[in-house]
Amino acid sequence: MRAVDIIIKKRQGQELTREEVEFLVDGYIKQEIPDYQLAAFLMAVFFQGMSFQETGLLTRAMLNSGSLLDLTGIQGPFIDKHSTGGVGDKITLVLAPLAAACDLTVPMMCGRGLGHTGGTIDKLESIPGYRTQLKNLEIKKILAEAGYVIMSQTAELVPADRKMYALRDVTGTVESIPLITASILSKKCATGAAGFVFDVKCGSGAFMKDSAQAEELALSLVKTAASLERKALAVITDMNCPLGNTVGNMLEVLEAADCLRGKGPADVMEVTLRLTAHMLVLGGICSDVEQAEKLAARRIADGSALDKFLLNIQSQGGNAETVMNSAQYKSLCTETALLSPDKGYISKCDASKIGLAAVTIGAGRARKEDSVLPHVGIELKKTVGDPVEKGEKLLVLYTDGDRGKEQALKLLSGAYTFSIQRVERRSRILRELDHI
Amino acid sequence: MRAVDIIIKKRQGQELTREEVEFLVDGYIKQEIPDYQLAAFLMAVFFQGMSFQETGLLTRAMLNSGSLLDLTGIQGPFIDKHSTGGVGDKITLVLAPLAAACDLTVPMMCGRGLGHTGGTIDKLESIPGYRTQLKNLEIKKILAEAGYVIMSQTAELVPADRKMYALRDVTGTVESIPLITASILSKKCATGAAGFVFDVKCGSGAFMKDSAQAEELALSLVKTAASLERKALAVITDMNCPLGNTVGNMLEVLEAADCLRGKGPADVMEVTLRLTAHMLVLGGICSDVEQAEKLAARRIADGSALDKFLLNIQSQGGNAETVMNSAQYKSLCTETALLSPDKGYISKCDASKIGLAAVTIGAGRARKEDSVLPHVGIELKKTVGDPVEKGEKLLVLYTDGDRGKEQALKLLSGAYTFSIQRVERRSRILRELDHI
Repeated sequence: MRAVDIIIKKRQGQELTREEVEFLVDGYIKQEIPDYQLAAFLMAVFFQGMSFQETGLLTRAMLNSGSLLDLTGIQGPFIDKHSTGGVGDKITLVLAPLAAACDLTVPMMCGRGLGHTGGTIDKLESIPGYRTQLKNLEIKKILAEAGYVIMSQTAELVPADRKMYALRDVTGTVESIPLITASILSKKCATGAAGFVFDVKCGSGAFMKDSAQAEELALSLVKTAASLERKALAVITDMNCPLGNTVGNMLEVLEAADCLRGKGPADVMEVTLRLTAHMLVLGGICSDVEQAEKLAARRIADGSALDKFLLNIQSQGGNAETVMNSAQYKSLCTETALLSPDKGYISKCDASKIGLAAVTIGAGRARKEDSVLPHVGIELKKTVGDPVEKGEKLLVLYTDGDRGKEQALKLLSGAYTFSIQRVERRSRILRELDHI
Repeated sequence: MRAVDIIIKKRQGQELTREEVEFLVDGYIKQEIPDYQLAAFLMAVFFQGMSFQETGLLTRAMLNSGSLLDLTGIQGPFIDKHSTGGVGDKITLVLAPLAAACDLTVPMMCGRGLGHTGGTIDKLESIPGYRTQLKNLEIKKILAEAGYVIMSQTAELVPADRKMYALRDVTGTVESIPLITASILSKKCATGAAGFVFDVKCGSGAFMKDSAQAEELALSLVKTAASLERKALAVITDMNCPLGNTVGNMLEVLEAADCLRGKGPADVMEVTLRLTAHMLVLGGICSDVEQAEKLAARRIADGSALDKFLLNIQSQGGNAETVMNSAQYKSLCTETALLSPDKGYISKCDASKIGLAAVTIGAGRARKEDSVLPHVGIELKKTVGDPVEKGEKLLVLYTDGDRGKEQALKLLSGAYTFSIQRVERRSRILRELDHI
């Protein structure tokens, strides 16, 4: 078998066999196949795509490049959630303790933010002491204590994904549905979950800008997971406007705590409850989504979800006090209000521009090697559907001194669109794709 | 400027600017852009193509990676010919001295054979002493003495092409019209010719199997040459059946000498005279192709073309005696005749199978690193259109002992197709594409 023949076969749009996919991935990891051959292959995949079956073979070959998370002795059912990323997307922070409070076990591997989208790891690391680079024994201990764990990618799990993602990043082959699918699923499978719920974001603040793309990715994730004998379901959610009222690492952690206290914004709660409910059905805890949503709502009302959140923070080395005191936090920043230039109803609050403003003030990363500031962020006072008077606060910007303030305010003032007519607030949930 | 942005731009089918093309090629040659980025770029070009203008920019950037052949003090007009390669294609061996005898000056850079197609350098090196790796002073001396020179690719001329071709070869990106065009044209321009005639072969024994592909390449060569301000013309010729009666290095040199003595097969003469005539028109020696064909025919009839051939062989260090004595040569090989299993007319003589049989006996290369045997080859006694009796000789195989003999005979016996009806012999010239 020769790598060049496999490249040509894919270039011609043919489906690869298990042996061919394994030959490529194994050879690449063993450095027997050079970067330049894999780069040409990845570009051929960009143009010719892969069947779900073939994407499953790629996922499995990548998965086999490392070890699996050892969960022996830990009680299931293990069900995971993955979001394709958005602006103000703190769902994981609420959903993980909520699912744990409903008796699911949730071993989650999460990422950092890049560009206008934030990352769960960055958000949690804004809690002083919170550690996400964990050893296997710690992971087991945290799961036993809190019912869920949030870890960074490790060297042992799916090294092929790290190596391939780095290559895709510099060869213009990131935006490929099968490659995105295999990257997501290989990491998700490595942590041992038996089922997944995918939150595929769609809109200006998401990776997928239109619904056709989002549906394509959702279908690929669900069908490929099925070919790997994992239960899966995808929910396509609206990401044209930031999720909730906050964008920024610590701000989002605080908002997540509010959600777990039953004081969360409607959109965050809608998405969180629906995704958690699907996880509960996949895990066999509930038989239908309505019943599952009610159970989840009870676990927020009775405080058990918040307990899991605080337990997890302690287990992962964080100071749980931080999340109980938002006043203390805000004193660390320079506050600037953006006032409404108009009277009317907010018809648009552009997630993309708000996400970029967050990067500008240091809440997110322009480049992978940048670091993020934990405290800076944006608090939306008005969002889509809200009535507003001229001169009323649209948002408050929290910055580190003046860092990025002017540029951010310029971006932010272009983010809002006003209407003289009443604007209806729509459901965030656009479509649900089952694995069948 | 970042390489990844240029890759993405091409991936999206946009046309690159001069600055972008130069950034990529220059960066690649200076090793600032790694193989893997160029590999991804090449695959994107495979799928998205390049405009003629863009292909011209690529050609020029490749050309600028090295020096140009110094022709100061040598009298023009400098006109060159390029063939895309076929089986039994000894046109260059006849055309170059013929063009020189008609007062053109022809500095030619030629290649070696690979797969079923032969290479001019391999053929000429079958003449004892003939050297094709030449220094610039030698090139000038040979041009002054013989009016044409045949040289191998050097380290100084177009290093970008050598580096890029080696990468294309292992990344499945050889079969791309703009990349083929830039590779051919950059080498052709480096030797300083002001005009080119392209012989684009089409058929089973050619790189381009069907006429649509051949026309696409012909058009790309002619239009790109025009964008580089070179005069150019392409002739698409039939390569379903070997050209002439011989396939094999020394055998083809001997057949070329026969052609120059006025004893060449009709098809080789037809193509040679037409291509030479176009060169003479491009060079301004003649005003139309008919007149030019007549001039070329006279230069064969008066022996001046053969004189140039013998002069060139001597100038390039070869023993001109060799090409005057075919009997001596044939005594070096084991002769085996393939007899006709049928009576009728030859309707097909498959160039691809005959080319592969030639590789099998060592006349060509299966892999780039193989060497070739100068004396072995195939002499066709019957070709398309010939009547044949059962048991009559179809061809004679010349082998080095028994090396490859059995396998070659198997391939060769499958190469012929017979018809009970008379088969018309068609012109080799399928189409001519002007640069306008």
